[in-house]
Amino acid sequence: MARIAVDVMGTDQGPAEIVAGAVLAAEAGHDVVLVGREEVVEPDLNAIGADLPVVHAPEVVEMHDHPAKAVRDKPDSSVLTAARLVASHGADALVSAGSTGAAIAAASIVIGRIKGVLRPAIATPIPRPGKPVLLLDAGANLEVRPVHLLQFGVMGAQLAEIVYGIERPRVGLLNIGAERAKGRDVERSAFELLEEAPVNFVGNLEGGDIIGEVADVFVTDGFTGNVALKTIEAAAGLVARLIGRAFERLPEEVLPHIAAPMNEIREVIDPARYGGAHLVGTSASVVICHGSSSRRAIFNAIRLATEGVKGGLIERLEHGLVRS
Amino acid sequence: MARIAVDVMGTDQGPAEIVAGAVLAAEAGHDVVLVGREEVVEPDLNAIGADLPVVHAPEVVEMHDHPAKAVRDKPDSSVLTAARLVASHGADALVSAGSTGAAIAAASIVIGRIKGVLRPAIATPIPRPGKPVLLLDAGANLEVRPVHLLQFGVMGAQLAEIVYGIERPRVGLLNIGAERAKGRDVERSAFELLEEAPVNFVGNLEGGDIIGEVADVFVTDGFTGNVALKTIEAAAGLVARLIGRAFERLPEEVLPHIAAPMNEIREVIDPARYGGAHLVGTSASVVICHGSSSRRAIFNAIRLATEGVKGGLIERLEHGLVRS
Repeated sequence: MARIAVDVMGTDQGPAEIVAGAVLAAEAGHDVVLVGREEVVEPDLNAIGADLPVVHAPEVVEMHDHPAKAVRDKPDSSVLTAARLVASHGADALVSAGSTGAAIAAASIVIGRIKGVLRPAIATPIPRPGKPVLLLDAGANLEVRPVHLLQFGVMGAQLAEIVYGIERPRVGLLNIGAERAKGRDVERSAFELLEEAPVNFVGNLEGGDIIGEVADVFVTDGFTGNVALKTIEAAAGLVARLIGRAFERLPEEVLPHIAAPMNEIREVIDPARYGGAHLVGTSASVVICHGSSSRRAIFNAIRLATEGVKGGLIERLEHGLVRS
Repeated sequence: MARIAVDVMGTDQGPAEIVAGAVLAAEAGHDVVLVGREEVVEPDLNAIGADLPVVHAPEVVEMHDHPAKAVRDKPDSSVLTAARLVASHGADALVSAGSTGAAIAAASIVIGRIKGVLRPAIATPIPRPGKPVLLLDAGANLEVRPVHLLQFGVMGAQLAEIVYGIERPRVGLLNIGAERAKGRDVERSAFELLEEAPVNFVGNLEGGDIIGEVADVFVTDGFTGNVALKTIEAAAGLVARLIGRAFERLPEEVLPHIAAPMNEIREVIDPARYGGAHLVGTSASVVICHGSSSRRAIFNAIRLATEGVKGGLIERLEHGLVRS
């Protein structure tokens, strides 16, 4: 069984939404333990009429707190308490929708890295029709060396296979053109490393390919990855909004016909479809959610974390990593 | 009057499409001179029944040619001939839809930089409802120093004002968060420089803001800019395609109602709306078009180039640049 420690505090939506997502997951058979301020979490649970184990953590890391400082100054915060629960095997994985920086810091300090991993990376699933594409790093490492990109490729491929069920995932290097000489020094060297790596490397790919059908895993530094990710979300959102606005002027009898296909598309591009992103490279599964996660997103993040644990993601990463 | 030298060769669509775009521009009152292989251009002109001045250039830089090598080995290529025409004041601006790298190399070598400019940058207009947003650099300089980003901001603001008619353009620094300490060293230093610069600096902005309403000019390195640009185009295109596909299943009587709003949206997100991107920082206006430019895109690129010349863009850049 996979027990998931859910950090309930410090999100944009408030604890009640996270608790509701955890309850949905428990009802679906997931093993969940909530970590947060008892006096907040218990009433939220009672309000739904649900009963889940709660581990009390009196302190809260807020979104505006400096991550490293908060981890130092608030040892009894929910995110650190949840990380300690995982480190002491009281839980198998951590899900947090609080400050991303604090979750990374807590995981690095308390849970630690898999032996051989130089830098854990955020592997964000980007929705597209069918299976998602994984983009890593999506913001944990703003500047990287070629060997980091190599490891991101290896870890991303294993994550794609185990958690997302993508067979023989195609790994692409995010670049500004297809030829092997394209890009900065870091991309040119990473190209050579990935070519020799035990992954299905498909070469250099461009920004426009991310949501295409040519690769399942995109490897890049955390600065570029973060910009690309936010750009995709916003561009898809803008077009969807433009269309919504244009349709407001349509005759009323047409609207019922349009509702179903529009909802289908919203479903495809909805970030809540996956709920969270694995931080790959830590010694236990860590899933980081958006600060504004809905209960559905939290439910899906718990599902992702469970898939990772049940699929033996950490063991696979431990054995499958290229030693460097 | 602004005379625009149009490099007709080396595009994906073939010379006839470029010639057709130039003829549209001439019919609209623009002063155009075509540069390319006479034996190709003249028949294309005759086929439309149009008469435009042609400067013969026997060689062609192909898309797969190495830019720097092609500029060295093909001195009589259309792009170099057109650049020389501009340098010798036989024309005021250059428009090319051939190899971007070759156009940048030709402009750098033959036309040269404005005094004080360290690195010319590609300023790509990204369509959104209303005025576009300018993203620079979109691929000319993969790695930059803070002072380059400062100059991109100053040049981008002047371009936005003169060519796109945006008053007091808001300049944002592309980053991974809003706080001033966010990003890599290059962003943190550029933030301080831009804050002191004679531009309307609105601070750090994220990838999702590019197509929002918070800034008119986005400054970043050419690697990030290129990825962001291609990502936006692809994401917008994907959503538009998903919607098109979903609507194929609608009852036939509904379709006429949907056609008008869908076309309106296609118009908003159509890259041909602006046609090309200014390479800012060179001593004469250079507009670089996508290799697959339609005649409408070429027409709009010629219009943009003309706006730059008539608005005195180069003079403004010469006087307005922060000396460094």
